[in-house]
Amino acid sequence: MRPVTFPSSPPPALERVRVVLVGTTHPGNIGASARAMHTMGLGALVLVAPRHFPDPDATRRASGATAILERARVVATLDDALQGAALTIGLSARPREFAGRVAPVRDACAEAIAATRHGVAAFVFGTEMSGLTNAELARCALVATIPANPEYASLNLAAAVQVVAYELRVAASLGQVWTAPRFAPATAEEAQALFEHAERTLVALRFLDPRMPRRLMPRLRRLFARAALEKEEVNILRGILARVDALIGSRHR
Amino acid sequence: MRPVTFPSSPPPALERVRVVLVGTTHPGNIGASARAMHTMGLGALVLVAPRHFPDPDATRRASGATAILERARVVATLDDALQGAALTIGLSARPREFAGRVAPVRDACAEAIAATRHGVAAFVFGTEMSGLTNAELARCALVATIPANPEYASLNLAAAVQVVAYELRVAASLGQVWTAPRFAPATAEEAQALFEHAERTLVALRFLDPRMPRRLMPRLRRLFARAALEKEEVNILRGILARVDALIGSRHR
Repeated sequence: MRPVTFPSSPPPALERVRVVLVGTTHPGNIGASARAMHTMGLGALVLVAPRHFPDPDATRRASGATAILERARVVATLDDALQGAALTIGLSARPREFAGRVAPVRDACAEAIAATRHGVAAFVFGTEMSGLTNAELARCALVATIPANPEYASLNLAAAVQVVAYELRVAASLGQVWTAPRFAPATAEEAQALFEHAERTLVALRFLDPRMPRRLMPRLRRLFARAALEKEEVNILRGILARVDALIGSRHR
Repeated sequence: MRPVTFPSSPPPALERVRVVLVGTTHPGNIGASARAMHTMGLGALVLVAPRHFPDPDATRRASGATAILERARVVATLDDALQGAALTIGLSARPREFAGRVAPVRDACAEAIAATRHGVAAFVFGTEMSGLTNAELARCALVATIPANPEYASLNLAAAVQVVAYELRVAASLGQVWTAPRFAPATAEEAQALFEHAERTLVALRFLDPRMPRRLMPRLRRLFARAALEKEEVNILRGILARVDALIGSRHR
C-alpha cells in the first residue's frame, strides 16, 4: 500500500497568513479558532477589540494551541490589524452590494497563498452574530464565501476558520503557481491612503459633496478593490491627485 | 444588480450521506457536529453508543440545527450504524496498519458523492481522544485523511465533521456556476473613450509629457483592463476628468 504523504510543516507560505477576528463575543470561539489554525499550521492571530480576552474559556478551547493565544496581538481597530498586508480577504456568508471581488473560499485561498510571495495575506472574520459590517468588508480587497446551505449558512466562527485554514493548507501543499504576471501589490495602508487622498481631492474639486456623498466613495473603493492595485499604480494615481491638488491650490491663491 | 447565486439546496446526493459518530464523549461535540452538518446541507446523523445523549449541551451547541439531533438515530454498534451503506469511509488522522485504500478527504468526498448514485455513503468518526480503533477502521472500505499539521493533527471532532461536510457540498455542487455581483460592463468604445479622455486631461495637467510619455498610459490601460470597468464607473471617472478640465480651463482664462 502506498502511504499518504504529507509535506513537511509548516509550508513557508502559511507563516505569512494572518487570521484577524473582529469583535469576537465569546472567548471560547477565540480558543477554538486558535486550535483550528494550529491543526493546519497557521500561527498568526490578531484580535480586534475582543469582548473578553484573555479568558479561561479561550485557553480551555484552544486545547494544545495555547501558544497561539499567547502570541496573539490585540488591537483596537481593523486598520491596525491589516497593517502591512499584501492581500486582505474578508469572509462573508452572502456577498453584499459593494463587495468588490467575490470568490469561493477555495479560489481565495489559492490567491492568498500566491500573495504570500509579496507579503502577508490577512483573512478577516466578523462577529459571531452578524459577521463583518459593510464598512469592514469594504476594507478587504477580496471577499471569500464558504459554499453553504442557503437555508442555514451559519457556520460557527471556529468552523469557518477551520475551513479556511484547511483550504490554505491544501493550497500551500499543492505547489500551485499563480502565473498571471504581477508586480508588487500595494499594502492595505497604501490602498487606504490612496482612497483617503482621492476623497480629499474630490471634495476640494467639488466633485464630491460631503453632505450628499451618494454612493461615490463606495463605488470607487469597489473599483480599486477589484483592480487589486499595485504599489506603482498607487504612486501614479497619487501623483495625479497631487497635481490636481496643486492646481486647486494655485487657483485659490 | 444580479446577486451571487448559490446552488439550490440540498443537492440530492447530500441527502444520501450519513454521518456516524462512534462513542462520542462530550455531548457538546455532538451538537456542534449537527450544526456543521446543517450548514452544508447534510441531515442524517447516527450515534453509536454516545456517552451522554440527549443532553442540554448537545442542544445548545447545535444552535439552529436541533432538528438533526431530534432525528438522530442512537444505535449500539458500528454494524448497526453502517446498515445499508453503499460506501463506508472512516476518518483517521494518521493511517495505521490498514489494509484498505487511503485517500485525502477531498478525493474521498468526491468518491462518496459518486457512490450516492448507488446508495448511502457513510462517514465514520471516532472518539475525541483516540479516534477510530483498528477494528473499526477495518469496517470501512476507505480511510479518509484530513491534511494537517503533523505536529498537531488534533482537529476537534466537530471541526473534522465541518471539513468533511464542506468538501461533500463542494463535490456535490461542482459544475454549479458562481456569479460575482456585477453591474453592466462598459463597452470597448466606452473604455477607449475614457482612456483617451484621461490622456488629454493628464497632458493638460502637465502630468504627462507627450514627448516623454514613459510607461504611464500603458500602465493605466493595464489597470483599467484588469478592473474590467463598468459603465457607471466610466461615467464617474469621466465626470472627475471633466471637473479637472473645467478647473484647468478657468485657470487659463
